[in-house]
Amino acid sequence: MNNINSELTRLIENQKDNFPLEQKFFTDKQIFEEDFKHIFSNQWVFIGHISRIPNKGDFFITEIANESIIVVRDRGGDINCFYNVCRHRGSHICTKTEGSLRKLVCPYHAWTYNLDGSLSNASMMDDNFKKEEWSLIKCNKNIFEGLIFINLSNKPSDFNEFISPLKPFISLHGLGKSKIALRKVYEIEGNWKLALDNFHECYHCHPSHPEYCDVHSKDYIQSYGAGSNTGPESLSFKILLNDWNKKVDKLGYFRGEYSENKFSNFYRSAERTPFSGGRLSETKSGEPASKLMGKFKEYDGGYTTIGPSPFNSLIMSNDFATCFTFLPKETLKTVVELMWLVDESAIEGVDYEKDNISWLWHETTLADKRIIEDNQKGVLSKEYSPGPLSKMEIGLEKFKNWYLEILKKSINQPSY
Amino acid sequence: MNNINSELTRLIENQKDNFPLEQKFFTDKQIFEEDFKHIFSNQWVFIGHISRIPNKGDFFITEIANESIIVVRDRGGDINCFYNVCRHRGSHICTKTEGSLRKLVCPYHAWTYNLDGSLSNASMMDDNFKKEEWSLIKCNKNIFEGLIFINLSNKPSDFNEFISPLKPFISLHGLGKSKIALRKVYEIEGNWKLALDNFHECYHCHPSHPEYCDVHSKDYIQSYGAGSNTGPESLSFKILLNDWNKKVDKLGYFRGEYSENKFSNFYRSAERTPFSGGRLSETKSGEPASKLMGKFKEYDGGYTTIGPSPFNSLIMSNDFATCFTFLPKETLKTVVELMWLVDESAIEGVDYEKDNISWLWHETTLADKRIIEDNQKGVLSKEYSPGPLSKMEIGLEKFKNWYLEILKKSINQPSY
Amino acid sequence: MNNINSELTRLIENQKDNFPLEQKFFTDKQIFEEDFKHIFSNQWVFIGHISRIPNKGDFFITEIANESIIVVRDRGGDINCFYNVCRHRGSHICTKTEGSLRKLVCPYHAWTYNLDGSLSNASMMDDNFKKEEWSLIKCNKNIFEGLIFINLSNKPSDFNEFISPLKPFISLHGLGKSKIALRKVYEIEGNWKLALDNFHECYHCHPSHPEYCDVHSKDYIQSYGAGSNTGPESLSFKILLNDWNKKVDKLGYFRGEYSENKFSNFYRSAERTPFSGGRLSETKSGEPASKLMGKFKEYDGGYTTIGPSPFNSLIMSNDFATCFTFLPKETLKTVVELMWLVDESAIEGVDYEKDNISWLWHETTLADKRIIEDNQKGVLSKEYSPGPLSKMEIGLEKFKNWYLEILKKSINQPSY
Repeated sequence: MNNINSELTRLIENQKDNFPLEQKFFTDKQIFEEDFKHIFSNQWVFIGHISRIPNKGDFFITEIANESIIVVRDRGGDINCFYNVCRHRGSHICTKTEGSLRKLVCPYHAWTYNLDGSLSNASMMDDNFKKEEWSLIKCNKNIFEGLIFINLSNKPSDFNEFISPLKPFISLHGLGKSKIALRKVYEIEGNWKLALDNFHECYHCHPSHPEYCDVHSKDYIQSYGAGSNTGPESLSFKILLNDWNKKVDKLGYFRGEYSENKFSNFYRSAERTPFSGGRLSETKSGEPASKLMGKFKEYDGGYTTIGPSPFNSLIMSNDFATCFTFLPKETLKTVVELMWLVDESAIEGVDYEKDNISWLWHETTLADKRIIEDNQKGVLSKEYSPGPLSKMEIGLEKFKNWYLEILKKSINQPSY
Repeated sequence: MNNINSELTRLIENQKDNFPLEQKFFTDKQIFEEDFKHIFSNQWVFIGHISRIPNKGDFFITEIANESIIVVRDRGGDINCFYNVCRHRGSHICTKTEGSLRKLVCPYHAWTYNLDGSLSNASMMDDNFKKEEWSLIKCNKNIFEGLIFINLSNKPSDFNEFISPLKPFISLHGLGKSKIALRKVYEIEGNWKLALDNFHECYHCHPSHPEYCDVHSKDYIQSYGAGSNTGPESLSFKILLNDWNKKVDKLGYFRGEYSENKFSNFYRSAERTPFSGGRLSETKSGEPASKLMGKFKEYDGGYTTIGPSPFNSLIMSNDFATCFTFLPKETLKTVVELMWLVDESAIEGVDYEKDNISWLWHETTLADKRIIEDNQKGVLSKEYSPGPLSKMEIGLEKFKNWYLEILKKSINQPSY
Repeated sequence: MNNINSELTRLIENQKDNFPLEQKFFTDKQIFEEDFKHIFSNQWVFIGHISRIPNKGDFFITEIANESIIVVRDRGGDINCFYNVCRHRGSHICTKTEGSLRKLVCPYHAWTYNLDGSLSNASMMDDNFKKEEWSLIKCNKNIFEGLIFINLSNKPSDFNEFISPLKPFISLHGLGKSKIALRKVYEIEGNWKLALDNFHECYHCHPSHPEYCDVHSKDYIQSYGAGSNTGPESLSFKILLNDWNKKVDKLGYFRGEYSENKFSNFYRSAERTPFSGGRLSETKSGEPASKLMGKFKEYDGGYTTIGPSPFNSLIMSNDFATCFTFLPKETLKTVVELMWLVDESAIEGVDYEKDNISWLWHETTLADKRIIEDNQKGVLSKEYSPGPLSKMEIGLEKFKNWYLEILKKSINQPSY
């Protein structure tokens, strides 16, 4: 562990401003393990939506690296998250991806847990065995507007402090009264930081994402494609934004921007921006794709993007939301889950079509998968060395600096 | 090596009584390699039966981790075991799983060995080349009642000392005059110790093995399911056993129990117990499944279970035997071979049906494969920690203590 | 790195004369990495022929371990070799195996390189960005008689010094005016040195290669099968060779032998020898298989074999050439590429048939793949230890000694 820390210290010190990370950060198994402990495990990450498990006993499983988390709705209607590890000999308890059950029964020796995690039965134990000491291990969890956030740390940061600046952005869209229209999973053969680098810049949007460039204007892509202040300012977009802000104020909807203004263990951002060209929703045609959600009474022509942490994104039109979860699996493997939310009263085939709402980000994520995998292949070469970043990769540089700062702090600190 | 030893010492010291092993024992590649050297390689393990190679020149191959062993019947009818490694440049000599041959000819350069391992021909060698120095490397081997035992150590323990207490149990069943009715191989994605832990307790039998619970009584499972003194005593079974012992004495058959009464490098157990409910054989119906074997003149309603080492089990009715071999392959991979033996004069379709004799342990081993794999998945979690063992897992605790004791002794000792 | 060096020093010192390498050389990942740096990367290795990319913009990709090399013909008709790594963020630029293009455009952010590697366009860069500093990284390259040689070192040895002694052998065959008739790729699950050991001796030819033994005489195989002075002299072949040399001198064609007569960083050999039995070409029938190539006006009944480095072989009849490239991929994986060249004016179906010219070495390479894989399996055993070499494995011993000498020199030297 000392070795990896001194190696990390050296690597961090050698990093150049405005250049991406050195090779080892993208290829080394030990650094992946450090990342998992110090970065992923310290973040609040949403891994699903309450509408996936509407009834008592409904559950689903989320897998991250070697961890498997049970998300289950209990008898009282509360949602609980547990490590999928029997307290007896460690077996997985839930062996299916999703389903419904009355108790959590380990398939090995039938240790039986209530849906609140308490051990209800374990046969043939010694007389001094105390059931109350062997509840399932809870995974830190918080729900906000139906989004289920987990945190793998044993000293999780304060959820309220975390969610506070994002609240008005999310609440506007009424995700708490939405349902999942569609879910898709994409497996990428690349390090999680290459996957996120891709998400932190829109410099690649023009060459790689024709669908995205059809939907969004050149000026938006340049100045806001990867978030506020991640590319050169566009005067014409600034004017558009000012005009739109006034319109939205009149309609009485929330708008504005949020970003960390100093270093924080959180890495959050959010903003509301206008579509251009009369577009009302992030669809191929620009036409609405489902029923209005949340506080919207009419289309305001705007678009909300939120990054609660590096491992999530929310990209929302007035009538549907696209939700991203990035899950590190192995040094060179990352899973991306996409979940599309619509108003809970919307009816498939009547109010919305799956293909219509998923078109843009399904196509774009398929392209990103290909791009990230080609990037990983080249980064493995002995001749890879970081090159100069463009004016449109400020978001990537910010993410890199935040990552290195967290890693620096974690060195010599106890993990989890 | 010092590192792994000091790590092992620390892990061994931290182990708690009546709790299973710590995570690293089930997941660490270096510990797997130590296990292979110090545990598996020092045991006498049967890997087949002589009836598999009835004729001169017949052979089969057994693979354990990186080792491949040739088992071949020579011209004089003796069975020899050799490492499948040509003395010249190391090629595998036998490249098929089984077959028949006149000489062992390396496919690479045609170095030709007699079936006793002596080098009969190597062309184009220097004049000072001495053929007698380049025989195949023998693998330690002993045959008892047709069972072929190997030992990978270069200082193997004494076979007679090893087999002595088990002799009357095995001989009763006449395995030396039996034949293989069926063989099946099961590949398990789990550490070999998780596979054996499963075999050392019958706490999981009720939740996981309905077939086993149909065949065996609740009282037997509780008190003898994983062997004598591995679970709480059952008074009613004790009475049944006493009555049955008297009956068997009258019939003149061997009966009784064996277990190590102090620490030994061997880990052996054996016992004879009665079926209940009038059952005569370990079949679905309880009816006989083949011809009586060995010394039996009539069915005595009993059942013999023998563990010659952690890597083998013999489970025998009066009319057929189920033989288990557990082979460690990789840190997270174990192979289980099952071999069913019947009397050498029994005829398939007339005296026995394969499905009938294999039903119980084929179904049970499929279930165990699933159970062990789910156990392994959970044990990889950061939240796995050993939990308290039940009163029915005394056999697992014994096995764990034996394993740790052997490992402790091996530290700082030369291997193989 | 110190650890691996001291381990290597110990292993090198322990090697015995006339015995193959110790196990670790064939199984250890760190030694594979040292090999790649110090052996493969310091050699000139041909990886293709110019006829594969006849037109401007034509390219193909060669992959070696983690490296991917673009070989492309530029606007001026020159052939350039580049590491397939964008200077910006490291993405692979060419994602197909071969094709044609006008510019090298990175699929990620559209950094656009001219076919000479210079950066022609990168949008949105800072004002102080200097395009001329961010050309593609060239891979050292030289072309001789149409063969494209690369060298991965950053201090490549002198190409002219390298090619000089081989020139007359290669030039005789007019490869510069040839074309590829066929290419085949063979993936072998074995260490690259086991693959090359196989190529450095013809002791295995009799047991393993019936096709080769049909085409070549027993005397040739014994004395020249793996090159001059790699097996016992054959008087009858010596007489045949002398007579043939006189005949060839009369015809005015080049003939003779070359080998390193003292230690060199190069490892080259070449010789011209006669077929026997009236054979004119290395085909099943011995009949010509295509049009005469190079300087040949009539068949001279001869055969040219050249080893420019351990990683290449040229095996040439008067009318076609079989070209071998051995590419280390992973510790236990090697790729062999075969390329058959015929005169550029030869027409398939009229002058030659693919099956006819590829028959011998396709069959022989399939057999070698099997042999090498079986060798690797045995070498992984704890009981593998190097055995005595035969009189027909002098070539393997020479290669081993050269390998160890290079490795010894590399210890404590900077790599690449």
